[in-house]
Amino acid sequence: MKKLFILSLLIIAAGFSLNGQHRINNLPNLPGYVTLKCDFHMHTIFSDGNVWPTYRLFEAIRDGLDAFAITDHIEYSPKKDYVPVDHNAAWKIIETSAKEYDIILVHGAEITRDMPPGHMNALFIQDATLLAVDSAYNAIEAAVKQGAFIQWNHPGWKSQEPDGIPKLYDLHKRLLKNGWINGIEFFNDSESYPSIIDWCKQYNLAVMGNSDVHGIISESYPKPQYTNRPMTLVFAKERTSASLKEAMFAGRTLVWFGDTLGGKVEYAKPFFYQSISVSKPYYGNSKNKYFEVTNKSDIPYYLANGPEGAPASITLAANSITRIVLSKKTAAPLVYDVKNILTGEKSVLKVELKK
Amino acid sequence: MKKLFILSLLIIAAGFSLNGQHRINNLPNLPGYVTLKCDFHMHTIFSDGNVWPTYRLFEAIRDGLDAFAITDHIEYSPKKDYVPVDHNAAWKIIETSAKEYDIILVHGAEITRDMPPGHMNALFIQDATLLAVDSAYNAIEAAVKQGAFIQWNHPGWKSQEPDGIPKLYDLHKRLLKNGWINGIEFFNDSESYPSIIDWCKQYNLAVMGNSDVHGIISESYPKPQYTNRPMTLVFAKERTSASLKEAMFAGRTLVWFGDTLGGKVEYAKPFFYQSISVSKPYYGNSKNKYFEVTNKSDIPYYLANGPEGAPASITLAANSITRIVLSKKTAAPLVYDVKNILTGEKSVLKVELKK
Amino acid sequence: MKKLFILSLLIIAAGFSLNGQHRINNLPNLPGYVTLKCDFHMHTIFSDGNVWPTYRLFEAIRDGLDAFAITDHIEYSPKKDYVPVDHNAAWKIIETSAKEYDIILVHGAEITRDMPPGHMNALFIQDATLLAVDSAYNAIEAAVKQGAFIQWNHPGWKSQEPDGIPKLYDLHKRLLKNGWINGIEFFNDSESYPSIIDWCKQYNLAVMGNSDVHGIISESYPKPQYTNRPMTLVFAKERTSASLKEAMFAGRTLVWFGDTLGGKVEYAKPFFYQSISVSKPYYGNSKNKYFEVTNKSDIPYYLANGPEGAPASITLAANSITRIVLSKKTAAPLVYDVKNILTGEKSVLKVELKK
Amino acid sequence: MKKLFILSLLIIAAGFSLNGQHRINNLPNLPGYVTLKCDFHMHTIFSDGNVWPTYRLFEAIRDGLDAFAITDHIEYSPKKDYVPVDHNAAWKIIETSAKEYDIILVHGAEITRDMPPGHMNALFIQDATLLAVDSAYNAIEAAVKQGAFIQWNHPGWKSQEPDGIPKLYDLHKRLLKNGWINGIEFFNDSESYPSIIDWCKQYNLAVMGNSDVHGIISESYPKPQYTNRPMTLVFAKERTSASLKEAMFAGRTLVWFGDTLGGKVEYAKPFFYQSISVSKPYYGNSKNKYFEVTNKSDIPYYLANGPEGAPASITLAANSITRIVLSKKTAAPLVYDVKNILTGEKSVLKVELKK
Repeated sequence: MKKLFILSLLIIAAGFSLNGQHRINNLPNLPGYVTLKCDFHMHTIFSDGNVWPTYRLFEAIRDGLDAFAITDHIEYSPKKDYVPVDHNAAWKIIETSAKEYDIILVHGAEITRDMPPGHMNALFIQDATLLAVDSAYNAIEAAVKQGAFIQWNHPGWKSQEPDGIPKLYDLHKRLLKNGWINGIEFFNDSESYPSIIDWCKQYNLAVMGNSDVHGIISESYPKPQYTNRPMTLVFAKERTSASLKEAMFAGRTLVWFGDTLGGKVEYAKPFFYQSISVSKPYYGNSKNKYFEVTNKSDIPYYLANGPEGAPASITLAANSITRIVLSKKTAAPLVYDVKNILTGEKSVLKVELKK
Repeated sequence: MKKLFILSLLIIAAGFSLNGQHRINNLPNLPGYVTLKCDFHMHTIFSDGNVWPTYRLFEAIRDGLDAFAITDHIEYSPKKDYVPVDHNAAWKIIETSAKEYDIILVHGAEITRDMPPGHMNALFIQDATLLAVDSAYNAIEAAVKQGAFIQWNHPGWKSQEPDGIPKLYDLHKRLLKNGWINGIEFFNDSESYPSIIDWCKQYNLAVMGNSDVHGIISESYPKPQYTNRPMTLVFAKERTSASLKEAMFAGRTLVWFGDTLGGKVEYAKPFFYQSISVSKPYYGNSKNKYFEVTNKSDIPYYLANGPEGAPASITLAANSITRIVLSKKTAAPLVYDVKNILTGEKSVLKVELKK
Repeated sequence: MKKLFILSLLIIAAGFSLNGQHRINNLPNLPGYVTLKCDFHMHTIFSDGNVWPTYRLFEAIRDGLDAFAITDHIEYSPKKDYVPVDHNAAWKIIETSAKEYDIILVHGAEITRDMPPGHMNALFIQDATLLAVDSAYNAIEAAVKQGAFIQWNHPGWKSQEPDGIPKLYDLHKRLLKNGWINGIEFFNDSESYPSIIDWCKQYNLAVMGNSDVHGIISESYPKPQYTNRPMTLVFAKERTSASLKEAMFAGRTLVWFGDTLGGKVEYAKPFFYQSISVSKPYYGNSKNKYFEVTNKSDIPYYLANGPEGAPASITLAANSITRIVLSKKTAAPLVYDVKNILTGEKSVLKVELKK
Repeated sequence: MKKLFILSLLIIAAGFSLNGQHRINNLPNLPGYVTLKCDFHMHTIFSDGNVWPTYRLFEAIRDGLDAFAITDHIEYSPKKDYVPVDHNAAWKIIETSAKEYDIILVHGAEITRDMPPGHMNALFIQDATLLAVDSAYNAIEAAVKQGAFIQWNHPGWKSQEPDGIPKLYDLHKRLLKNGWINGIEFFNDSESYPSIIDWCKQYNLAVMGNSDVHGIISESYPKPQYTNRPMTLVFAKERTSASLKEAMFAGRTLVWFGDTLGGKVEYAKPFFYQSISVSKPYYGNSKNKYFEVTNKSDIPYYLANGPEGAPASITLAANSITRIVLSKKTAAPLVYDVKNILTGEKSVLKVELKK
């Protein structure tokens, strides 16, 4: 019962150890940019989630996130008989602690409507109460007026799109024309919508990935089955809130969940090459030469469709060194498909292993 | 985002899977009684906990508890700027669900005072708001009038007893004389107070063990380090709320945390013997005979101080069969101390292995 | 270095703890029979395996096997430059220890030939050296003369059957006619050949499942991905070598690997019903009734294709209790397919849940 | 059964996947030196171990070792009834494979005598059969003539030193005078002998740590309890056999097991400072400043006895970033004891955290 009445240590009183320690992120930076791990979609008891906001902060720190947003529903308050509606509550409760723990807290909310437009997260807002207006269009406008980044959530959610296929309705086209959609979720929890990469390329949007967690991260994505929650990797000029926002509006993102990366080729390709290095041959005999590929990232890469004389497939496990045996007769470049880097509905990244 | 708007399945909307499935409890019954797994001390966002009450129900079902109580503080409401004080809220929110999941929900609250008397859980109450009165004595009286079982919590908590030693103050003696203390915590979270077994024997009280969880059970007691939260094993005539209450007032309990059991010899001894069985020798040679001891409980037993010619110590792992090799010269009975069954401040259970 | 020179404790000197302790097997017996966990296909350094026989004994005890056989290749001795060929070596080395640890050691060897007949394990032999003869037929005959049970191993192994499909060649038909094939492997390591159940029914053979381990069991089938090695469950009158042999010749077996059971309906059906029990309803409201199904076995059951008004699919996790919610309108019997009990190439067991 | 008859892939036939993949070692180099992970004490079936030499190679590759030695006993051959004595067998069997997998194989053997001198590993030999001579002194001499590095194994092994205390006998002093002892084991399996650091300083010897494995590494040091086997970290000019040998004779080593490092201050100190980096303050308020310490090594550091106003103890978890909160009033340097870096029988490393 050591947890109570230690008021100056509010967070310890929370029943978990918010000690600010987390594992090093082994994710490569891109040239000119730092890679920020982010989750922009979470719920608390201030809508239909099951935890107090401080606990979301604890999870974010432990998981080594650089930035996160709590995005409680504006239009859905199932606990209102016990908890008065306050759309800014989560933000107010953890704003100071986030600074003390060196994590970027993005003020957010989820505009929760029928399809179209479906659910839209407003990120980088100042006051969520202004989003509580009748029409979806006006709610989004109220967010945009605050400088918000608008993220279209789970566009193929089967409760709203029974066939699971994301569709651009007239309202979406109008919002896009206004510049009022700035990103679309590729990953929402364990669901994925690879087809939206095409729209992101066409309209210059950010490809987004988030947990949409309502319960407990460690129970929703238990180790060792899962290595990480779904997240967005943002390539920012600096690790600041302003830089993060600039990068998101510029569409410089990839998404990561489990062992799958997704996003635009222009970011996926340098991310892969920054992750790996290829050694010179360390040994040879009459038939073969032997060399190593080092993958210094937290993400494994599954290479397939290799050329004649080379291994047909290679797994470059995360944070690991892999030996390659190559026939001395092999002349073709070592071009492979990376099966777990999705760059479109049916396309994966193509790479070459070379010293 | 499948979690929202499925109102008829409120619990799935909670972000975790409340499917009512749990592992079989391998805990022996005592002759004439069923063994009930119970945790009578938990917090939610209605005092200083971090989760919604439904989540506590989910944890209790998953952990295979037979009964539990949410016991939010009466006098401590650190979230009251956002959550209006309602001492019965947790109970009201999950009362119906508990029935549907066949788990006994005990209505409770924590009377939270300076020492003496310290913190006292009132269990089996009808209305917690009646406990919000000025004097600790009157608060306890208000609980007793509702038929409450009064549990003295963490009697040696260092924030209230800097030397960590539980003490009987005059107020406690007065309460005991009234019959207003009915149990004392031996285990509170990872703290233990073995000395209270003596008072429980003297005053015929129940030895209690509880989690006092504020955060997340699976993160507070992670597997494989921990096999279980701290809990009270109650030996009831039937698996009903009324029987549970009768057994607690009669003091028929043991406590269990990790690999440690604690309590009165009269319950510890039959619990051990109901857990194990000893085989006939299955093999012998000129020097030794070989037999097996089966421990069909979820609790390991660490036997020490064996007689000459027998193993000095034996670990009877949980749910396991252990081979014993005995010199044919051994004549002494196989009497051992069970190091992890505490029956007092400095005493452990003594047992004999025999066919 | 405590491992050396303790000659009377040879097994501790082995560098692992052969303490004779293992978890209780929660596998139901069939009426009139005890269920024996067996693995009849393993290798050591006496052919192309990588461990000393004592280590196989250690693994078998730890895994709670009732019986096992080491079946080194007769015709393949890749280590013979360092280890002289001795087809009975493994047996001799561990025969006495097996008795002390109460495990049935079956003397075996693998007759290792091109297809047909492929590889055949001879089990319950007395002298493996007599199997080292020129023709495959004569080798099998030499085993049969010793009373051997002949098991056809991995009948669809792609090194011998490139399409992976087991085939009955003339030689097999001749052996079957002689009664010289008594069982066929359904599971060999992670490969399975469900089609052989039909032959087992037609010729009254035992369905067999084995690890064929060459390396380390705990690394080949690591937890938590795997709960067990591939094995044969034999339904014997008693837990003796003679009873085991009688049961195998009578074809009373099922096979188990991971979460999959396979074999004849006549054994699969009572095994399922001995595993589970269905409670009376414990609760009801205007719409639904609530009851529980207990699965007290180590094997989960995946039920599918339920009737209208009942859950379409139900997972009865191993050693667990599962809540079922049933519409009061449901009149149809609760008939399900058990997706993970294979009773033929394309058939699964059909069961009914009833009190 | 895919394991057999694929003769060109002998190692796959071994029943485990020798794919040459391992995790990146996050161990810092020292200025001018590369850090090599080494285990110089292992057994196979060619003495009293339980595995074939190829399996030791597999384990070494998987564990990311840079160098290892198999050191079967010269004088103890308990399997000789089945396996003819060949002291060079393990070396011959895996010599070529080691090259193909880019791991340094050190030819070794264990001279196995009563105390004094006890057991002595001869490393970097050419022919182990020459060590099979009558007197211990002559056996060591025969090794030294081959240029061997002589390691005194488990000097306080209780089978030879019942009080567990390593002692320098006359024979040891004579060997030391000759330069015929070059290193002493600090770690042997889970035993440790910290007092030998003093002798290593006095006689300029290498502090050694090894597994002395007889069974299976992954079962002897199971994760998550253990992160690594006991090993020697050697600071070599290059990653070659010659450089390794030079470094060992020069005494440039530390030892590592679990979360404990041991060795001479001159190597322990730079190893610690190369492991960590301290950030500038990232935040401050009226009372405190906040900064981070990054530990980019696989070894945690437990800091204790901090100065007034700073945390009394700090855990710098492996591969992790730790937040530090410091009172603005703290003027003292942040000097700590590193409790898990042993630099003598009763001394630990003292360090300062500074930007």
